[in-house]
Amino acid sequence: MSVTMQMTTDQLNAFIDAGIPAFRAAGYHVNQVADEAVQVRWRYDAGAIRPGGSISGPTMMALADTAMYALILARLGPVGLAVTQNLNIHFLNKPRDADLVASARFLRLGRSSAVIDVLIHAEGQDAPVAQATGTYAIPARTG
Amino acid sequence: MSVTMQMTTDQLNAFIDAGIPAFRAAGYHVNQVADEAVQVRWRYDAGAIRPGGSISGPTMMALADTAMYALILARLGPVGLAVTQNLNIHFLNKPRDADLVASARFLRLGRSSAVIDVLIHAEGQDAPVAQATGTYAIPARTG
Amino acid sequence: MSVTMQMTTDQLNAFIDAGIPAFRAAGYHVNQVADEAVQVRWRYDAGAIRPGGSISGPTMMALADTAMYALILARLGPVGLAVTQNLNIHFLNKPRDADLVASARFLRLGRSSAVIDVLIHAEGQDAPVAQATGTYAIPARTG
Amino acid sequence: MSVTMQMTTDQLNAFIDAGIPAFRAAGYHVNQVADEAVQVRWRYDAGAIRPGGSISGPTMMALADTAMYALILARLGPVGLAVTQNLNIHFLNKPRDADLVASARFLRLGRSSAVIDVLIHAEGQDAPVAQATGTYAIPARTG
Repeated sequence: MSVTMQMTTDQLNAFIDAGIPAFRAAGYHVNQVADEAVQVRWRYDAGAIRPGGSISGPTMMALADTAMYALILARLGPVGLAVTQNLNIHFLNKPRDADLVASARFLRLGRSSAVIDVLIHAEGQDAPVAQATGTYAIPARTG
Repeated sequence: MSVTMQMTTDQLNAFIDAGIPAFRAAGYHVNQVADEAVQVRWRYDAGAIRPGGSISGPTMMALADTAMYALILARLGPVGLAVTQNLNIHFLNKPRDADLVASARFLRLGRSSAVIDVLIHAEGQDAPVAQATGTYAIPARTG
Repeated sequence: MSVTMQMTTDQLNAFIDAGIPAFRAAGYHVNQVADEAVQVRWRYDAGAIRPGGSISGPTMMALADTAMYALILARLGPVGLAVTQNLNIHFLNKPRDADLVASARFLRLGRSSAVIDVLIHAEGQDAPVAQATGTYAIPARTG
Repeated sequence: MSVTMQMTTDQLNAFIDAGIPAFRAAGYHVNQVADEAVQVRWRYDAGAIRPGGSISGPTMMALADTAMYALILARLGPVGLAVTQNLNIHFLNKPRDADLVASARFLRLGRSSAVIDVLIHAEGQDAPVAQATGTYAIPARTG
């Protein structure tokens, strides 16, 4: 576990798998929790390929959203119901047929909201395939 | 078929189902092709519910993207490879447990790009649950 | 004044002019307060033209932001410090040399945040020149 | 001049000042052209302060747009008419009363379009005050 994070990779995967069984079933898992970033990986699945040969947009959008959610959990602990308010994604380069890895980091972490940046790479391809920013509402914490 | 559209609802569903079998398997189908808009419906599936009781963000993002894609096909005909460049989505209100219907219309339709607005409602709920805008690159057409 | 709005056009202009003198100096004023929408107008100024002949992007971005701010004031009254969190703008068509009119309406108005849609037209031109969505944080109201 | 850039800081400022006199009049100038990024600075002006004490949103939006435009010019040379298609900005932290510096870098540079990331800081303040992404259409080059 990193200095600033509240959950390890294993704890994160266990928490998400319990709450959202569809997560692992669709090929996503938390790959790494580092000091300032969380990586989520999507395992390549030919069923997500679209005509023209690219991995589908919704696969990358779901990966970006999942990486943001995992980052908030990792940093704040299993507080529950952070809610996506907004997600903006740019598709940059056509990914090769490979696993995708999304790396999420905070642009801002306030008391009631967070803004997160995500960069998605296809394994073995230098140029990023997508970039996203999102805002999350963070529920009031009691303590 | 509407005055301005090139494909009927049935033609659109047949074309999309042939190219993207995952589309119907995930509960999406084209609902209506009207003069200026296309509606795509997602059939409610309890497997898409997230902790806290809301339909997942990725379900709504995929629905928005699908509605944009269907609108371009309906208007231009089965030209093939329009590519999403950017999608921005705002989650507005928590949807009730119901089918979702996305209505897509053009903000701009140029020769090489399109900008599309999508509004998503849950059936039986007045307030919209999400709004999205997206940009598509349209491949050069040969004729 | 409309049924749902708390301020008239004159009250809005007086309030904004007092707080933000740069507003009118830069050519902006509130044009109309209707039941569900507020219109802000930018008076054409050749100084805002960019090489290539288009009205500058920042002029349209400022107009969109101003229209959102005016809508919140009109609906909630002069509550003060609503803060823009996010603004996404699509430039759709090159505007002719004319006044611009932005029309803003709520996609969502919650207790602590609002999501607003803005459409900008150039006078005498049918196709819209820009579309924007934005999120605002609304400060807690005391009563 | 950097290895990858086609224009120096001085060349950039001269080109922009000639085409857009409002640029320098409003307090903007190109600060630095580095290997992979361009910095544009806005000189603090109390006239841009809004009620509540923050530098106005439109000031930061114009700075972000200007930094993107300068980056494209720096990299491609004075090719002229690159056009902003879309700009999405997140306001992150309230800036102190100070100059603002925007740093722009490419997320993607293709033949006909570019996607650019901009981070804005207030001088002497660690946390960024705004982040933006934008897409630009690049006109076909003859040569």
